[in-house]
Parts: sequence; C-alpha cells; structure tokens
Amino acid sequence: MIATPYLLYLGHSSDDIGIKTSRGLAVFRPDICVGEFRHDDCPLTLGLPRMGFAEAVAAGARTLVLGIANAGGTLGEDLIEDSIAAMEAGLDVASGLHSRLKDEPRLVATAARTGRTLHDVRDPKPNIPIGTGRFRAGNRLLTVGTDCSVGKMYTTLCLARAMQARGLKADFRATGQTGILIAGDGVPLDAVVADFISGAIEQLSPAREDGGWDLIEGQGSLFHPSFAGVSTGLLHGAQPDVLVMCHDPARTDMRGLPGRALPGLAECIAANLKVAQLTSPQVRIAGIALNTSALGEEEARALCARIEDELALPCTDPYRMGVDAIVDEVLNPARSLAKAGEAV
Amino acid sequence: MIATPYLLYLGHSSDDIGIKTSRGLAVFRPDICVGEFRHDDCPLTLGLPRMGFAEAVAAGARTLVLGIANAGGTLGEDLIEDSIAAMEAGLDVASGLHSRLKDEPRLVATAARTGRTLHDVRDPKPNIPIGTGRFRAGNRLLTVGTDCSVGKMYTTLCLARAMQARGLKADFRATGQTGILIAGDGVPLDAVVADFISGAIEQLSPAREDGGWDLIEGQGSLFHPSFAGVSTGLLHGAQPDVLVMCHDPARTDMRGLPGRALPGLAECIAANLKVAQLTSPQVRIAGIALNTSALGEEEARALCARIEDELALPCTDPYRMGVDAIVDEVLNPARSLAKAGEAV
Repeated sequence: MIATPYLLYLGHSSDDIGIKTSRGLAVFRPDICVGEFRHDDCPLTLGLPRMGFAEAVAAGARTLVLGIANAGGTLGEDLIEDSIAAMEAGLDVASGLHSRLKDEPRLVATAARTGRTLHDVRDPKPNIPIGTGRFRAGNRLLTVGTDCSVGKMYTTLCLARAMQARGLKADFRATGQTGILIAGDGVPLDAVVADFISGAIEQLSPAREDGGWDLIEGQGSLFHPSFAGVSTGLLHGAQPDVLVMCHDPARTDMRGLPGRALPGLAECIAANLKVAQLTSPQVRIAGIALNTSALGEEEARALCARIEDELALPCTDPYRMGVDAIVDEVLNPARSLAKAGEAV
Repeated sequence: MIATPYLLYLGHSSDDIGIKTSRGLAVFRPDICVGEFRHDDCPLTLGLPRMGFAEAVAAGARTLVLGIANAGGTLGEDLIEDSIAAMEAGLDVASGLHSRLKDEPRLVATAARTGRTLHDVRDPKPNIPIGTGRFRAGNRLLTVGTDCSVGKMYTTLCLARAMQARGLKADFRATGQTGILIAGDGVPLDAVVADFISGAIEQLSPAREDGGWDLIEGQGSLFHPSFAGVSTGLLHGAQPDVLVMCHDPARTDMRGLPGRALPGLAECIAANLKVAQLTSPQVRIAGIALNTSALGEEEARALCARIEDELALPCTDPYRMGVDAIVDEVLNPARSLAKAGEAV
C-alpha cells in the first residue's frame, strides 16, 4: 500500500494529456491530495494548492506521485532531481512510468539513506498464481470496451461511488497505473507475464462473502489486436456476474490503428459475454457507458436514448448523466436477463 | 541462436515425463544431437551415445541442453555443478527451466571465466513491439487445441516436415521452450509481458514473399481459463490463413483443472475461427490432429473416420497416420471452404 495523502507532480509539463494520472487522482481522490508541485514554467494546474516539498510534508503529505507521462514514459533528469529533493524532505515517491524508479541508482541510494520508499506501480507483485477459473463467491462487475481508452476506469469508479451512495459495499479493483494510485492498491495488468493474466485478477478480486460488490477496472478490448489477450484473461479471471460496456461514439478507428474500424455495440457485447461465459456461465450485461464529450447535450441524450431503445439496456454518459440507470440494472437484472434470453 | 550440435542432459532424472525437452530434441532433431549425459543412477536413455563433457566436445558438441524439468522448474545443486563442469570442458549451456541460469552467480562467473554462453530460452528477447494486426504477406498456419499439451508442437513439426518433403518452403516457428531448442530460435510466449503477446508473434513470423509457409506452434487453448489470454494474442498475432485443431480424445478434464470438461471439437473450431478473423478474415480450418496413443490401431482409425465424417475435415493422428491428409487440405482448400460456408 502507498502511504497517503499525496502531493501530485506536474513538474515542467505543458502537456495536458500527459498529466492524466495526476488529474485522475485530483478528480477522483481530492480527499487524499493535499497539493500540486509544479515549476514556474508549468502552465497547468489541477486546482490544488501549489506547494514545495517541505510545505507538503508540513501539510501532511506522505507520497509524491509522479503522475505525468512524457514521451516514452522515461524518467528524465528533472524527475530524478525532484524525486531526490522530495525524499530529502520526507516524502515517499510513487511512479506509474515505464522506466522504473528502482532502476535509477541515485533514487535507490537516496531512498536507502533517507529511509523513504519507492513505489513502481507498473511492477506486478511477485508470486502471482496461475488462474484456475474455479467458482468463487461474491458479486463482481467488470467494465469492458469497444476499444482502449474509452472510459473504463472512469465508469468503474463512478459505479463504485454510486453503489456506495446507496449504502452498498462496493470496492473498486484497479488494473492500471492510474487506478492503482487512486485505489492505493491493484495489479498493473499490462505488465504481468502472459501466463498469469487471469491468475492476477483472481488474486486481485478474491472470493467475498459479505454481499458486497467488486467493481473491476477493464483493460483493452476483445477487438483490439494489440491487447485482446489481456482483455480475454481479464474476462476469465474476473469471473464477472455483470459486464458494463464502455464506448466512445466519436472514435472512428481503433486506438493507434488507423483504418481499423470499431466493432458494433451489439457484436462487442455478444463477444464479451461469450468469452466471459467460460468462467461465469450466468454473466449478463447491465448497460452501456458512453463518453459523449464530443457531442452537445441534446445530441448526447438522443444518442443514449437511441442505443437504449436498440439494445434494450440502460445507456448513459457517466460524467453527464450519472450511472444510476446502470446501477438499477445491476441490482435488478430483469431487463438484461430478458434481453439475454433473446440474444445469446 | 544457440550453437549446435547439442549434448542432451538427463542427469540423475528418473522421471520419464520430466525429460520431455531432451526427448523432443532426440526425436525431432537427431541430426543435431551428438549424445546424452547421464549419471550412473539415471535409468533413462534417449537411445543416444552416453558421453562425458570432454568426450562430447571431442565429438563436436557445442551446447549442453538442460532438457529436463524437476518439480518447480528449479535449478538444483546437481544441475549447477554439472553445468560448471560442462563449461570448463568447452560447452555452452542452454536451459528451458523457470529458474534462470543468469540468476546463479556461480554459473555467470564460470561463463565469464571460460568464455562460454548461457542461454535461458524462457527469457524473451528485449524490444518486442506492440502488435498492430496490420495485414502482412505470406502463408501462415497455426495449430490450436481443445486443451494444453495435446500435441500442438508435435503436429506443427510434422506439418513442417511433410510440406518440406513435398518441396515446399516451410518453417517451424517455435513459441515454447522445447520448440525453441528444436528450432534454435523462437519466442517463449508464456513468459512475454501481457501487452506484447500478439506483437511477439508478429515479430516471430514476419511478412514473407517467397511463397513459403510459416508453421506456428500453438499454445494453450481458448477454453483453458488459465491461459486463454495467451491463445487469443497468439491467434491475433499469427494472422493465420489456416488453423489445425489438436485434440486428445482420452483427456476427460482440462489440464490441471479437474472437473472442467473439454469443449466439443466443433465448438472449439468455431471459437478459434471467430477470434482469428479479427486479423485474418479469410481464415479457415484444414483439419484435426488427434493424439490416439491411448487407443488401439483399429479404434484410432475408426475415431478419425467418424470425426472426418462429422466435421467434413481431415482427421488424423500425426504419429500413427502422418499428416498428408491435412497438408492436402492446407494446399487445396476446397473441402474446408465448403464447410466454412455452412458453419460460419
């Protein structure tokens, strides 16, 4: 577990997309973010108090989160120097970059000398078991997608919040670096060795007997030829009772693959149900989460209504319209069970 | 590339199944195996001349292959001592064990001192690309299976041999440690990081324009909940023109998962074609390879005939009956295309 609260690092960044991990934390966990660290040339802000390292420690911060991604995910000289200064001031350092903190001798030496901890959240824990597919108790929901980066983490977090707001026990289970920093724990699934994909998820979301829900963050897409192996192992390991399909209606090509079309929603839902059935024969789909940020309000609502009508499932933009309609369907499966009877 | 010819290690082993990598080499590559090394307490033999290390070097051997697997895949004291002696005598050492040679300081020190090379064939090469799914030229065949360990490597090697015997260019592309030692090259797919499964296969079997075939060794099964992610990425990366389904009719439960039934052949073929279509829309199935070793001759032939009739595809035991019927179907797709028209 990574010690909280966090100081969020922006550094010298001027890349609004590159700071998405820091922003994800500021949006979803403002309760554990005491401030942001940025140099004078950084034009960005997360709307948090700007702080130096000593100031952040005085405000209670425990860990500096390097929540930025430069090209290639490397650890530049500026990040190294700032991390050393942060440890000298009393902060641990956590990073989701491809380059590992533990591979930089100066950081390792400083951590040893100052007694601080380095967290490489892209490093899977050791001793991940091989998956078994054996039935386990509990209620599990997995988000899936027509493509990568269509809002699976965001939707999963919104669903967890909405279920908690109804008094249910509901835990977000993170499978990517931003999600892991938000949850304080999780498995960086894209970095797990291939034989252990489903086993890593069985370990992340073990049997639970308390009537609560595990909401598991999806990765990739069965229709993305780069990453469908990860998505397949995740479906099998999650043993989901319920799927929620995430989609970006403005996306014309699969991410990173110009010319490759996205699957249709109905086709994508059917394929995901089919794969999931191997370990969860009763799996059902409870709704569709759209990212309608490219559409006007009226257009977005019309699109959701049309998809609801076509697929006989709740369809919503979690950011704009909340996820209550999907939570209703998760908890009261009448509608999707009827649909599954027709479609499968 | 690993230097050949090989000296095959049996050591102190009395486990007939544990020496399967050494045996695979003796069976498929007798041309590159000069002898076997075993201690006096080893009751097993591969039928090769028994040799000490110096004797093997004198006979031309270049590499000692630790083609055995003890429980856990660990590198015991006896293997370490024998490997050191082999290097002192002038041999490189290659291993497919989980435990890596490079993690044993005594082996690393001896290799440095003697100028020998250590080969951990379970270590993927660095810089594997992310898969793209983009169309590439060439003819590619992939073996798939109803389960793990149902003869995919064996079948793939037999198909390569049979095609070569017909004067065709045909190359075996290895994806497991035994296959890699047989071919001298390949990718240990189960050890690749999850995001790179399909990319590793695109790299292993690149575009070819010479009219020849790549015969790609399959792994796992879409119906094995531990490893289906690997199988999925392999199907996408292989971009196969042709699949061959491997099956063990004596198997009652999925390997390692008592109580989990195997899929039916028709169901398994349909699922593999469906997944493969993402990167190879025209993919077809060219036959079924059975391991009938548990059956009598007559029973085996009757079973193949029945499956041929049911699925309208060639069905053969490669060991007993050869693979000519499948090669015919690979090269002349009339029959399977007709079938695909009905089934898909």
